[in-house]
Amino acid sequence: MNSPTAELAAFAAGLRFDAIPEPVVRRAEDLLVDWFGSAVAGHGTRPVESITRFAQAMGGGMSGPAEVIVSRARTSPYFAAMANAAASHVAEQDDVHNGSVFHPATVVFPAAVACAQALGASGPQLLSAAVAGYEVGIRVGEFLGRSHYKVFHTTGTAGTLAAAAAVGHLLGLDARQMQHAFGSAGTQSAGLWEFLRTAADSKQLHTAHAAAAGLMSAYLAKDGFTGAAQILEGPQGMAAGMSSDADPAKLTDGLGTRWATAETSFKYHASCRHTHPAADALLQVMQAHGLKPEDLARVITHVHQGAIDVLGPVTHPATVHQSKFSMGTVLALVGRFGHAGLAEFEQHFQDDATQNLRERVSMALDAEVDAAYPRRWIGKVTVHTSDGRALHGRVDEPKGDPGNTLSREEISAKALRLAAFSGGATAAEMQAAMDVLWQMASVPVVGALLPGRA
Amino acid sequence: MNSPTAELAAFAAGLRFDAIPEPVVRRAEDLLVDWFGSAVAGHGTRPVESITRFAQAMGGGMSGPAEVIVSRARTSPYFAAMANAAASHVAEQDDVHNGSVFHPATVVFPAAVACAQALGASGPQLLSAAVAGYEVGIRVGEFLGRSHYKVFHTTGTAGTLAAAAAVGHLLGLDARQMQHAFGSAGTQSAGLWEFLRTAADSKQLHTAHAAAAGLMSAYLAKDGFTGAAQILEGPQGMAAGMSSDADPAKLTDGLGTRWATAETSFKYHASCRHTHPAADALLQVMQAHGLKPEDLARVITHVHQGAIDVLGPVTHPATVHQSKFSMGTVLALVGRFGHAGLAEFEQHFQDDATQNLRERVSMALDAEVDAAYPRRWIGKVTVHTSDGRALHGRVDEPKGDPGNTLSREEISAKALRLAAFSGGATAAEMQAAMDVLWQMASVPVVGALLPGRA
Repeated sequence: MNSPTAELAAFAAGLRFDAIPEPVVRRAEDLLVDWFGSAVAGHGTRPVESITRFAQAMGGGMSGPAEVIVSRARTSPYFAAMANAAASHVAEQDDVHNGSVFHPATVVFPAAVACAQALGASGPQLLSAAVAGYEVGIRVGEFLGRSHYKVFHTTGTAGTLAAAAAVGHLLGLDARQMQHAFGSAGTQSAGLWEFLRTAADSKQLHTAHAAAAGLMSAYLAKDGFTGAAQILEGPQGMAAGMSSDADPAKLTDGLGTRWATAETSFKYHASCRHTHPAADALLQVMQAHGLKPEDLARVITHVHQGAIDVLGPVTHPATVHQSKFSMGTVLALVGRFGHAGLAEFEQHFQDDATQNLRERVSMALDAEVDAAYPRRWIGKVTVHTSDGRALHGRVDEPKGDPGNTLSREEISAKALRLAAFSGGATAAEMQAAMDVLWQMASVPVVGALLPGRA
Repeated sequence: MNSPTAELAAFAAGLRFDAIPEPVVRRAEDLLVDWFGSAVAGHGTRPVESITRFAQAMGGGMSGPAEVIVSRARTSPYFAAMANAAASHVAEQDDVHNGSVFHPATVVFPAAVACAQALGASGPQLLSAAVAGYEVGIRVGEFLGRSHYKVFHTTGTAGTLAAAAAVGHLLGLDARQMQHAFGSAGTQSAGLWEFLRTAADSKQLHTAHAAAAGLMSAYLAKDGFTGAAQILEGPQGMAAGMSSDADPAKLTDGLGTRWATAETSFKYHASCRHTHPAADALLQVMQAHGLKPEDLARVITHVHQGAIDVLGPVTHPATVHQSKFSMGTVLALVGRFGHAGLAEFEQHFQDDATQNLRERVSMALDAEVDAAYPRRWIGKVTVHTSDGRALHGRVDEPKGDPGNTLSREEISAKALRLAAFSGGATAAEMQAAMDVLWQMASVPVVGALLPGRA
């Protein structure tokens, strides 16, 4: 191994299913089911339908071996990865890895499932490919660091490598070919936060791009196409261009012993993850003191700088999607309903009561929270009540984090809720799919997850 | 107009063919023919064939309205743009705009021609779309500046916007939709120089990616998909992430009066443009003093920093393509044969005589050359002869620059040479295509340029 990139590529190429500890395999199944719910949740949303229409038009009405989950069409793995990755991120319910501030499922599973369906791969092959994608993408996100995340959407940038690792693993790339795939993926790495300022649709484009470009990079490497040897840490590579605090040691941290896959958090609220610690802290203090929404005169959330960077520009959310990046809206919904789920956003994000409460919420940089971030996402709020008290709420692990995780029952229930909300699949269809997905480690051939269009 | 991005988008959307001065239209035809020669030159090269195979596999053997020039297949505009953009850059003979260090043809024409073929657009529509693409891409390259080019391949990054502008123009986007297309294109902007270090295939991937992503951005905007309003100059936009010396005034410099399209240079040598000024200066001093290759004891090229950044890593070129980024190899071929064309590279880049001469060539940063760059590309060399003289060569405009441009006869001859070299088309096929291309301003419907496969 002559470089961190080479070592990471060799790991992704050489990972054996048998070498993955049992609890990590189980967690990968959890993440797979949780992803599937998010993919179905993309059904019927305008940006996802646009990308899906484009993929189907440019495929010329083709049929193929891979499944577009929101439209039930069958197409090539490239277009299926593109469409499903767009779909999986729109409800803001897909998973997140705290330390890397990276959403692995939405870029890894669309690419891996599409390729597995095209190859007729087995369940264990799909799961080990997914774990390869998670381990790579998370380490790349950690490597790129906080300076990167200030401007770049890490899920879009690190996502190309995560998807390339998963698909490259399924295609049986050797270590050298995997390194070429990383080179091609990293040199297509893209995704800027600027779209948040005008509530544009780019988040769906970022994940679509990452999954499709990563898949393409792996297929090209299989065909002999070469990429930079050190796309990550080289002097004109990703870190040189897009980070000022990159740490190459993070690329290979604990490879094969530390399973970053199992550190991934599930999302309980349907909003940007940066709002969750404060949301849970508010819930904690309201429950502890029996507060009602009208008791909340002012809520100060004590946050890390990353929350201010991402959520700060969103002061007057105009759309449901934008409101998921509004700290005030999220806390208002939690204050009013105890949970900020898809239905709460859809029905109540612009209520007078929500807007009124939203304006009483502010963010303040907190030294303890900021120092712990991104390894730990601590939630702290100060509530000034209308009768003049100052109360403090705190959670050390928001719901969905590894130490406060969701059970299989909670994950299934969440997926069913998402499907019912979007109308993307019936309860019976979801149940049938989940019966397979929960047993992925013993599935002989990965097939379609939902029935095709009649 | 509330921002430079908005103003640039409005220009690209609103440009009328009648408003383009006659000499600029003629120059656009010159650039079109010159591009076509470069696209045909990509035939049979391994990286281009890989990308073309991928496009055809993921299109599921579909047929479509757009032409893949190297394979004669017909596919969707998306895959045609991808494959033709890969093809157009591999021979290193496509055009370049000095001030932006941006190669417009290889990203603009593949996207514009594919879309024009799909829509059945007219020649004037294609030409005004191309001019829109050139004007936008060049200004984005100038805006991103020298700091950007140190790490990023500007043709890949600015190229997404150039392609989006051209395709958006053909699709009839209004100013607001064009701004959305720019947002989607800019947030997919990518391409790192790291691949040069190991002579990897990424340059072809960068142009393929830029053309395809730009085209996709324009089609999505037509369908209502939104992008960031200020993707270029916004606080989390392209410049914030990828430049430290960006100047927003460059985005709108002389829009509608200064025609950057006509400032574009043709390539005479088949190598990286950074080698051309020195190559011409060497030729000048050799001709002035009647020097032979064996007279050249040492050649010092006095260059700008960008040349050192891009060419410096290439000390021992192992492939024909890499040798085009070796200052020593280029000057050795010029010294030996008077021209560094495709045939000279292919047959002689590894000759003992070439390698021997290569080792006698060095680069030194020159204050005058560096200060003039990138607006002017001055060539200066000092030759130490084997009989002890120190001679100086100089050119102020390398051959192919606007003040020292190629005639239509020279452009046609170059295209015929490229086709003959690659075997991508017969002389008769090239002649028939060029008969149409030279008259593009009066073509009623843009069709296929070459006969389809039997």
